[in-house]
Amino acid sequence: MTLEYESPLRVAIQGVRGAFHEIAARETLGNDIIPVECLTFRELVAATESEKVDAALMAIENSVAGGILPNYALLRNSELQIVGEVYLRIVQNLLALPGETLESIKEVESHPMAIQQCTDFLGEHPEWKIIESEDTALSARKISEGEIRGKAAIGSSLAAELFGLNILAPEIESNKENYTRFLILTKKDGKIRNTTSNKASICFSAKHEPGALAAILKDIADCGVDLTMLHSLPKVGAKWEYIFHADLVYDSYMQYLQAVKTLNETATYFKVLGEYQAGSEIF
Amino acid sequence: MTLEYESPLRVAIQGVRGAFHEIAARETLGNDIIPVECLTFRELVAATESEKVDAALMAIENSVAGGILPNYALLRNSELQIVGEVYLRIVQNLLALPGETLESIKEVESHPMAIQQCTDFLGEHPEWKIIESEDTALSARKISEGEIRGKAAIGSSLAAELFGLNILAPEIESNKENYTRFLILTKKDGKIRNTTSNKASICFSAKHEPGALAAILKDIADCGVDLTMLHSLPKVGAKWEYIFHADLVYDSYMQYLQAVKTLNETATYFKVLGEYQAGSEIF
Repeated sequence: MTLEYESPLRVAIQGVRGAFHEIAARETLGNDIIPVECLTFRELVAATESEKVDAALMAIENSVAGGILPNYALLRNSELQIVGEVYLRIVQNLLALPGETLESIKEVESHPMAIQQCTDFLGEHPEWKIIESEDTALSARKISEGEIRGKAAIGSSLAAELFGLNILAPEIESNKENYTRFLILTKKDGKIRNTTSNKASICFSAKHEPGALAAILKDIADCGVDLTMLHSLPKVGAKWEYIFHADLVYDSYMQYLQAVKTLNETATYFKVLGEYQAGSEIF
Repeated sequence: MTLEYESPLRVAIQGVRGAFHEIAARETLGNDIIPVECLTFRELVAATESEKVDAALMAIENSVAGGILPNYALLRNSELQIVGEVYLRIVQNLLALPGETLESIKEVESHPMAIQQCTDFLGEHPEWKIIESEDTALSARKISEGEIRGKAAIGSSLAAELFGLNILAPEIESNKENYTRFLILTKKDGKIRNTTSNKASICFSAKHEPGALAAILKDIADCGVDLTMLHSLPKVGAKWEYIFHADLVYDSYMQYLQAVKTLNETATYFKVLGEYQAGSEIF
C-alpha cells in the first residue's frame, strides 16, 4: 500500500466492531485507527462525506457471491474517491466464553450468511440449536456481555480478541477460497493521499446503439489497459438504460491517461471513481 | 408471450403467497396456476429440477438496485432454461382489516425493503410504529389470520385479495419507476414450449488477455445482435477469474445463430441459458 496519512485515522466500518470491515480497516490503515460503526452503507458514505470520519472501508465484491451492486450506485453518486483496496479471506471461527468446550455448547448464533458458510462444520454437530442473528460480531458481543454459557457465536478472530472469547474451533468455513474485496474511501482532497496507482475504477455510459460498448472496450484495450471487472447497472429514473462500472489495470499511467482521454471523447457519460494500487490478498 | 403449455401449471415462487413472485407468475402463466412456495432461490431451482413443479418465477434484476447476481450463478449451474421474462412494476399498498382507517392504525409492519420504498408516505405518519418483518405478504397474512386490529402491512394488492384485507392507501411507493424483472424457468424439455424468440441470455468466459472481451463483444455486434446487459461474475474456485453473463436481443434468429457460432469459436466457455420473447412491462 502506498498511502500517506497521519495516524490515528477515524475510519467508518459497516456493521459493529469485530466484524470483517474492522479487520480490513486495521490491515490497511493500521491498528491505531478509531473505528466508527455505521449501520448501513448509506450511513457509511454520509459519515465520510460530512467528514465525521477521515476514511471508510466498504465491501464491494465477494469471490463467491459476486459484486455488491447497490454499493456501486452509492459510490457513483457520492463525493468520495477510492484510494485503495484489499482482498480479505473470510475466516470463520467458533467463539465462546473461556471454559466452554465443544461438548458444553448447546446453541450457536450468527448471521445467516456465516451459518451458511460453515454448513460442513455445523453438520458434524446436529445436537446444536442454530440461531440466526443480525451480525456475527454482535452475537459474539452478546455472549461476552451477558456471560452466556452453553452458547457459541460464529465470527472473526478479532471478535474473539475484542470481546474476550476463546476460539473453540478455528477456520470452520467450508470454502477456503472465500475472499471479500474492500475499498478504502475518502472525501476528495481528504486526509489520505495515494502516491502511485496501477488500477482505476470508472463508470461510463455508451451510446444506445449496437456495438457502442464493444467499441469503447476496444479503445481501452488498444491503449494497453486491461479490464478486470464490468457490470451494467440500471440508470435510476431512466428505465433499463445502463451505466457500466469497470475496473482497469495498467503498467503505465500514461497508457491509462490515454484510455481516459478516449473515454472522455466517446462515452456519453464518464467518471473516475478512484486511482489506486491494486490490493493484495490478506489471510 | 408465445408460450405453449397445458394448464394448470405448478409454479414455484420465492417467498410466500401474495408476494410479487406470485403476481409475476399469474401475469405470465395464468390465474389458474398452482403456486408452490419456496423459502430460498436455491430451493426454487431444486424444486424445478426435480420436477416437483412445472416452472418457476425468479427475480433477476431490479431497475433501482441492479442485478441479483447470486441468481445468475444458480441459473448457470442448474439444468433449467429461461423460456420467458416479465417486467413487473413494484406497487406497494397499505393493507389492514376491514373497518380500519388511517386514523385507527398504530403500527405498520413489512419487509425492510418495502418500508424503505415507502419512506415518503410513512414520513407523513410519524405517529405510526414501524416494525420490520421477513416478508411483505407474511405480514399481511399474520394480520388476517390473527385478526390484529390497529395494525397495517405494506404489500401487494394480491396479498389484500388473498388474505381478505382492505387497501387503506394505494400506490404508496415513493419511486413509480421501480420495476423488477422476473425470469420464467423450466427444466429442459419441460412442460412449457416457447415458439419464437428475440432475446437470449448467455454466459461465457474470455481468454485472460487484454482486449479479449472487447473482441467477443465486437463479434456479437458485427452479427447485428445487440447487448442489453453484461455482468462479470467470479468463477467459484478460480479466484478472481470471471464469467460474463449477458443478454442479447435480435430481430433475426439467423443473426443470433451467427453470434452463437462466433462465441462457440472464440469464447473459452459458452452456455446459452435460454432463448425467449423479450418481456413487456406490467403495471
